[in-house]
Amino acid sequence: MRAGPSQEEIRRQNLGALLRFVHVRGQISRAELTSELGLNRSTIGALTADLAGVGLVSEEAPRETGRAGRPSLVVRPSSDLVYAYAASVEVDRIRVARVGLGGVVLDQREAPRPRGEAIEAVRPVAEFVKDMAADVPPQARCIGAGIAVCGLVRREDGLVRLGPHLGWMDEPLGHALQDHLPELLPQVAVGNVADLCALAEHTRGVAVGCANLIYVYGDVGVGAGIIAGGRRVTGHGGYGGEVGHMVVNPHGRACGCGSRGCWETEIGEHALLRAAGRDCSPGAPMGTDAVLSVVDAAARGDAAAQTAVRQVGDWLGFGVANLVNIFNPELVIFGGTLRDVYLAAAAQVRSRLNSIGLPATREHVRLRTPKLGNDAALLGAAELAFEQLLADPLG
Amino acid sequence: MRAGPSQEEIRRQNLGALLRFVHVRGQISRAELTSELGLNRSTIGALTADLAGVGLVSEEAPRETGRAGRPSLVVRPSSDLVYAYAASVEVDRIRVARVGLGGVVLDQREAPRPRGEAIEAVRPVAEFVKDMAADVPPQARCIGAGIAVCGLVRREDGLVRLGPHLGWMDEPLGHALQDHLPELLPQVAVGNVADLCALAEHTRGVAVGCANLIYVYGDVGVGAGIIAGGRRVTGHGGYGGEVGHMVVNPHGRACGCGSRGCWETEIGEHALLRAAGRDCSPGAPMGTDAVLSVVDAAARGDAAAQTAVRQVGDWLGFGVANLVNIFNPELVIFGGTLRDVYLAAAAQVRSRLNSIGLPATREHVRLRTPKLGNDAALLGAAELAFEQLLADPLG
Repeated sequence: MRAGPSQEEIRRQNLGALLRFVHVRGQISRAELTSELGLNRSTIGALTADLAGVGLVSEEAPRETGRAGRPSLVVRPSSDLVYAYAASVEVDRIRVARVGLGGVVLDQREAPRPRGEAIEAVRPVAEFVKDMAADVPPQARCIGAGIAVCGLVRREDGLVRLGPHLGWMDEPLGHALQDHLPELLPQVAVGNVADLCALAEHTRGVAVGCANLIYVYGDVGVGAGIIAGGRRVTGHGGYGGEVGHMVVNPHGRACGCGSRGCWETEIGEHALLRAAGRDCSPGAPMGTDAVLSVVDAAARGDAAAQTAVRQVGDWLGFGVANLVNIFNPELVIFGGTLRDVYLAAAAQVRSRLNSIGLPATREHVRLRTPKLGNDAALLGAAELAFEQLLADPLG
Repeated sequence: MRAGPSQEEIRRQNLGALLRFVHVRGQISRAELTSELGLNRSTIGALTADLAGVGLVSEEAPRETGRAGRPSLVVRPSSDLVYAYAASVEVDRIRVARVGLGGVVLDQREAPRPRGEAIEAVRPVAEFVKDMAADVPPQARCIGAGIAVCGLVRREDGLVRLGPHLGWMDEPLGHALQDHLPELLPQVAVGNVADLCALAEHTRGVAVGCANLIYVYGDVGVGAGIIAGGRRVTGHGGYGGEVGHMVVNPHGRACGCGSRGCWETEIGEHALLRAAGRDCSPGAPMGTDAVLSVVDAAARGDAAAQTAVRQVGDWLGFGVANLVNIFNPELVIFGGTLRDVYLAAAAQVRSRLNSIGLPATREHVRLRTPKLGNDAALLGAAELAFEQLLADPLG
């Protein structure tokens, strides 16, 4: 009986698994690889040699271990030589990074986001990429690019179906960037910012080893990246995780989506600023700084700011409790501007979670802030770009 | 390079895949197996022979095909000889079936559920099992039992953490049944009724081939079985899918869970009966018949019943829209008493879905009733019992 996956498939799977370990751990000894992958030493040696042969990893003797015996070689990702571009298109700014295999940010740029269609955002992204490309060693290899965007992204082709706070509808963001730089970028993948933050925290942040987690990301809008049973929950077309449009308050305020009382209208930036009596008119200061100024005012005793923080914290806990009942996660991560809201209103959040969450669904849930901070979107976008390489390293 | 899964692992995987095809399809030709599994004919022949050797499948020549050439042998599951017991513990009744490999219901019993702890429900289940066992051919083999229960089930050991409408807390349902029948039942697995209905509809019902679906099950309580990316979403401890305790109406009625305005308080049996002015006091008629009588009254023009159906349908659509925004499913299935509510209030449900669901998340969603009807819970419980056999048929 010799059926099953072909030797070629098995080899591809093993190469991918090994490269993923090296990519995630940053450096790992051959001995650890042997034990983690459950393969024998000679196989690990051969797989590593194959990956080293195409320049994906390098091997070297470790520093003196002080232990007897021949020390195991250390395998490292070739971060300087194999890289992706990662971009984050946010309401107020665009960021672009060059990220080496292993998740190492090698270079980074930032600019305000030009208003208008996707093409307006693509131009400065493309300029940054060209700019950074000038400093890349000639023998280095670009895998492609990943873009995180605050919108609903069609999995199939990366079309941004809706980016309400960007003013976008049906914008072919990925294709537009690739059309700008066909020679620099072999492929461009696009994902929702919350999904990619969840992916990044799961790969190398606060959620490593955690199979069931929800990353709630807030700025003007609110969305979630959800991982269940170790896999991303993105739905049929890629649009899952639109928790910001879970209606929590049927008698609440009108939402931009046409509905009323969406979670986003209760916990987004506008909700906090409005509740604190701040200016929310178009052109008024928004974003993390504006949110932080309310949180700081609350900490200094400003009564309106304190009420605002409590009220938004209350709704934050309300929606999180709903999600905990639905997903029974181990971990909820608060990112974007919700990080600061959570830190200021952790008591409200926990209290709501305790009153609405069922004891069994909430008993093991930890509430946390991101480990990767603002880099999560870029690192997640880079993970998206690396996915194909990790699935088939020699392909 | 000869690393990767061992030959033994590959063989186990192939045997499981082949047996699963036969189990799900009921009968399938060797030629179809060859093409479905992507293995060559001799491998399929050898795998089939192994499974036939231990009595899991049988092969026979097909009826005259009218085509030239030697017809491909047809492989069938040995439904008469390999079976599991399946039980469904519901608020008002218990049901027990003997289900053959291939999902064939061979025998079935039903009784009112005795009130009290799990042990009270286990006694008649055990009696039914013993009774049915008397008719089983001596050479037949029992794989174990699966139980569907309307409660929160700990994945690890099948403990029913909470069965609010059964009056249960921390009831070791599975262990209790196995302790009653250690010689008849090699293993007992327990699952939530909505999860198992979803599993059954996904395996052999309306959701075959559908990777993203939500089965909303209602009786007194409301829960969902969720499949995302082809895999069950059950959460960290197994308690996911408690959509009945998603709060949809913060100013709503008190829920038995201690919270207020849970979805269950707006769409469960009590909500419909109460809204229609029916008696909801303890001991009053409940269940499918009571729900159907309201739905029928509405169809006959009873104004109170019509209002009740519209109101509950409205809340049903409201919660479904929230779930569609979160999961972007292809399919939502309405089971239990919600089947009839949905059929009577489809317009309200669709209207709410259209107003709250984002166009991208709802565009491909189909709303359906179950194909397997009331058998879904039992067939799902049987699938749970068969899982281990399908993972390792010769183990």
